[in-house]
Amino acid sequence: MDGFAVRSESTNEALLTRPVTLTYGSQAEYVDTGDPLPDWANGVIQIENVEALDVDGNLATDKRNPASIRIREAIAPWKHVRAMGEDMVATQLVLPAGHTLRPIDLGAIAGSGHYEIKVSKRPRVAVLPTGTELKPIGEPVERGDIIEYNSVVLAGQINSWGGTATRYPITVDVFEAIKATVAEAVKEHDLVLLNAGSSAGSEDYSADVVQQLGTLLVHGVAVRPGHPVILGMLDADERQVPIVGVPGYPVSAALTGEIFVKPMLDQWLGRFPESQETIEATLTRKTMSPGGDDDYVRVVVGEVGDKTLAAPIARGAGVVSSLVRADGIVVFPSGTQGAEAGANVNVRLYRTREQIANTIFCIGSHDMTLDLLAQFLAQRGVRFVSSHVGSLGGLISLRRGEAHIAGSHLLDPETGIYNESYVQRYLPDTPVQIVPFVEREQGLIVPKGNPKGITSLADLQRDDLHFSNRQRGAGTRVLLDYHLDKLGIEADNISGYEDEEYTHLSVAAAVASGRADCGLGITAAATALELEFIPLFSERYEFIVPDAHTDKVAPLLELITNNNFNDQVNALGGYVRI
Amino acid sequence: MDGFAVRSESTNEALLTRPVTLTYGSQAEYVDTGDPLPDWANGVIQIENVEALDVDGNLATDKRNPASIRIREAIAPWKHVRAMGEDMVATQLVLPAGHTLRPIDLGAIAGSGHYEIKVSKRPRVAVLPTGTELKPIGEPVERGDIIEYNSVVLAGQINSWGGTATRYPITVDVFEAIKATVAEAVKEHDLVLLNAGSSAGSEDYSADVVQQLGTLLVHGVAVRPGHPVILGMLDADERQVPIVGVPGYPVSAALTGEIFVKPMLDQWLGRFPESQETIEATLTRKTMSPGGDDDYVRVVVGEVGDKTLAAPIARGAGVVSSLVRADGIVVFPSGTQGAEAGANVNVRLYRTREQIANTIFCIGSHDMTLDLLAQFLAQRGVRFVSSHVGSLGGLISLRRGEAHIAGSHLLDPETGIYNESYVQRYLPDTPVQIVPFVEREQGLIVPKGNPKGITSLADLQRDDLHFSNRQRGAGTRVLLDYHLDKLGIEADNISGYEDEEYTHLSVAAAVASGRADCGLGITAAATALELEFIPLFSERYEFIVPDAHTDKVAPLLELITNNNFNDQVNALGGYVRI
Repeated sequence: MDGFAVRSESTNEALLTRPVTLTYGSQAEYVDTGDPLPDWANGVIQIENVEALDVDGNLATDKRNPASIRIREAIAPWKHVRAMGEDMVATQLVLPAGHTLRPIDLGAIAGSGHYEIKVSKRPRVAVLPTGTELKPIGEPVERGDIIEYNSVVLAGQINSWGGTATRYPITVDVFEAIKATVAEAVKEHDLVLLNAGSSAGSEDYSADVVQQLGTLLVHGVAVRPGHPVILGMLDADERQVPIVGVPGYPVSAALTGEIFVKPMLDQWLGRFPESQETIEATLTRKTMSPGGDDDYVRVVVGEVGDKTLAAPIARGAGVVSSLVRADGIVVFPSGTQGAEAGANVNVRLYRTREQIANTIFCIGSHDMTLDLLAQFLAQRGVRFVSSHVGSLGGLISLRRGEAHIAGSHLLDPETGIYNESYVQRYLPDTPVQIVPFVEREQGLIVPKGNPKGITSLADLQRDDLHFSNRQRGAGTRVLLDYHLDKLGIEADNISGYEDEEYTHLSVAAAVASGRADCGLGITAAATALELEFIPLFSERYEFIVPDAHTDKVAPLLELITNNNFNDQVNALGGYVRI
Repeated sequence: MDGFAVRSESTNEALLTRPVTLTYGSQAEYVDTGDPLPDWANGVIQIENVEALDVDGNLATDKRNPASIRIREAIAPWKHVRAMGEDMVATQLVLPAGHTLRPIDLGAIAGSGHYEIKVSKRPRVAVLPTGTELKPIGEPVERGDIIEYNSVVLAGQINSWGGTATRYPITVDVFEAIKATVAEAVKEHDLVLLNAGSSAGSEDYSADVVQQLGTLLVHGVAVRPGHPVILGMLDADERQVPIVGVPGYPVSAALTGEIFVKPMLDQWLGRFPESQETIEATLTRKTMSPGGDDDYVRVVVGEVGDKTLAAPIARGAGVVSSLVRADGIVVFPSGTQGAEAGANVNVRLYRTREQIANTIFCIGSHDMTLDLLAQFLAQRGVRFVSSHVGSLGGLISLRRGEAHIAGSHLLDPETGIYNESYVQRYLPDTPVQIVPFVEREQGLIVPKGNPKGITSLADLQRDDLHFSNRQRGAGTRVLLDYHLDKLGIEADNISGYEDEEYTHLSVAAAVASGRADCGLGITAAATALELEFIPLFSERYEFIVPDAHTDKVAPLLELITNNNFNDQVNALGGYVRI
């Protein structure tokens, strides 16, 4: 406290009505908060409770440098004094070893008089991308080129885990070149990551390189995705330097980092591995797993009502977006065969529980505006996760309590009204609100210039055409089947009717890549991939919101009334806000 | 898949018993995993399922470059082919704005063909420590000096929150000097933190400086600890630069960072503030709170049995170790008066729930070996948190289910046996194990050279001596009272009998600082502070472990049988492992 240092004994007699006067200098001395107490003093009386007097006994102008002070209360010994050792005392443990220092810890260390402490050295890790087909980020790519980004992901992981990564330039698939790069890298690093070239393909030299430069310990692990991981030790003068052959597929590469590289860094840094946050969740879909492997299944996690759900997402080892979208990982250990829908699983979370709780889970029909919604909601601190299973699939998910909201455009052929009859049929016991959102064009997506001269659904029967269809239950599929029926066209007569894609953009991508000559979809998908669009029908895309989730979905319902948002919807093309 | 690109149609007739032969070059072409498909092909047949033939129709030596291939199964179109757009399609949202990029996100961005993206600029923050009494870390300190470490904590916070901190040298408490430093800092920074000098003491120029260089907006906030926070805007040529006057007390300074600085950085970085993980817990102690302030109370959080407990820790704004030890914060908002013991409170966590779950909660008597236990257990991935409330307090906490284990050295004067009778009396219904740990010396702690010639407890009655006592319920206090009684010494005759300290080290610190002439305590405390020790009694320090927590405490029970650990216990001095 700011005030006067005194001896408690000299204040004993002071009363409100019978003040005591203390001589400044010998009996009282001004101190600021934080100042040390003079040796002779054993208490502080706050400046507010003191009358500071000048030599004549009048109130002093400089209250902090008076001739004497008059006090009207006694103070106990050590009043307003912080004892030495209140915070820390010599030899006391400030922080245990193996602790990762936070900013406040630096304060405690410095504050307890330490200005040098021993910390673990950051392990130096070389990241070596190899592959003749690889192109550095930013260079023009041609057909067959692959953009090299695994080294960016691995280096990012290493730096975030306390290591120091060195990204090497791409080495071409030439045995001697790879060997030379590894031999060079091992000199200045504590760990070498050799990316790609670890499967059994024609350009896979990793295992041989490890064998020539040291000892190959492991070739192939029972982990999926990630199988062709290589583990070995390289001889480097006096040292033995571990090497990890990291598979080329991006998901395998990133998971190899998590599963094999991080524990090494933890060990070297003397850090007990942070246990990842886990959450118990209900699996939404039957998930098969090869019994021989530890299977790392990426899932999206949502809290719907009082249930926590884990929905498996695309499993391809090449689908990097599956890791970006993943909220967590479910591991089906070797010896198990996966799990049934409804099973309880443990999810290792990539996000906090708060982020999970703060998520709107949308399921059903795919529409391009859903990305816009995600974008705008993120700025409002709300995560928007959408899963595309078709309109009907969305209604069924709502019935099962597996989503907060569904997007749907299901035409009732008898009434010409969208969604209502389907909602009555599939959600008879669930009070819901049908929220009109957009009217959009459906039509045929064809390559630029429409080289095959397609004009109507009747053309789909042509022998020289291959069609790309949507999956059963998709509103677009319902629409197609309805019109085919009306036109008397047999599905069997359409080449490609069985090729099912799950989104408008996938259909457009099939057309863009030449896999299909046309597909049925929305304007925005054709526009996105610079394809041509032959409009056929206009339809309503609406949101189905169970009353139980109105509060959860409120930010979305508010957003779709926002002018700025609706301007951007219109800018996508082919949409009318309804 | 590694294999041969083919057209599905050309494989249609193939059967195990009736193979089809395809000409290499025109009908089949070797591809590695990840290679693009030739234009004419629409599927891949795995190399394992192919007989590669040379020109003579024999098995080719180079399986990857044969004259023809023989196949014995048909493949469906697009078999083993990954479609373009499987992962990401043009215009699709890869990541919403305002997202903090993780390593895997960089992969998704690069993989989707972006090599430049717009990111938020790191805000530049100047951290200005001021105060004539401050000494930089590492310089010799004298009485009255304060080691300046707030700037280290603030800079660490800023860097970890996405800003770039500049730590300025210490500015002395001279108005013009502070003003000049602020005026300089404002030129190159987006935010200025002016540390200390924000209370109303004699050297507090912050508010005046802000007023002269811009606009003072706020002087003092209803937040505890943190009260004298200053908020203002500085004029800097074309720009307006915010300034925060950060209080000098380390806990106030760190919390001011969290409460006032982080939200600004979030806003500038376009990042929706991460909501902190929270946990519901039961308050272990009645906690009073001044109704006019938002009161930030640091707590230790433990899971004991099926209860989650929040135990408030030291509240002094100067006690930096309170933030280091804190597992979280409970905020009692302005207008509330705190809460009773047993109340449900929400804790904002500084650690993960997993770390909390992985914690042994020890309560009761203080002993120096507890720090060693914490150190060794940390290396085994177990957090050990000890709270010092005295032996009796420990037993009572065990009864209330508020700890996993208690340290106790309660002598039964009638039997001379430690702890047993107390356990029977205070934990009649709780099955426990009494685990012998150490025998240790208790004695009088006096300054080096024993200037007052103290030799026994009888000396405590001397007028020229001031004693430092332990709190009621401490085993050491029980021991003292037992022996005073035996010697017929009245507590009233001992000056300082009422001065209660909570740990052996605090008693030693009282002696070291001259606040007391002696205290009763253990050898190790005297050794730690280089004081003299007059041994009087030997006593048993034991652990009380309820059977319900045996599993939880297992790592500790295992550790105390570890030779390496016991060697270090012996090295502390005054201990015998029993």
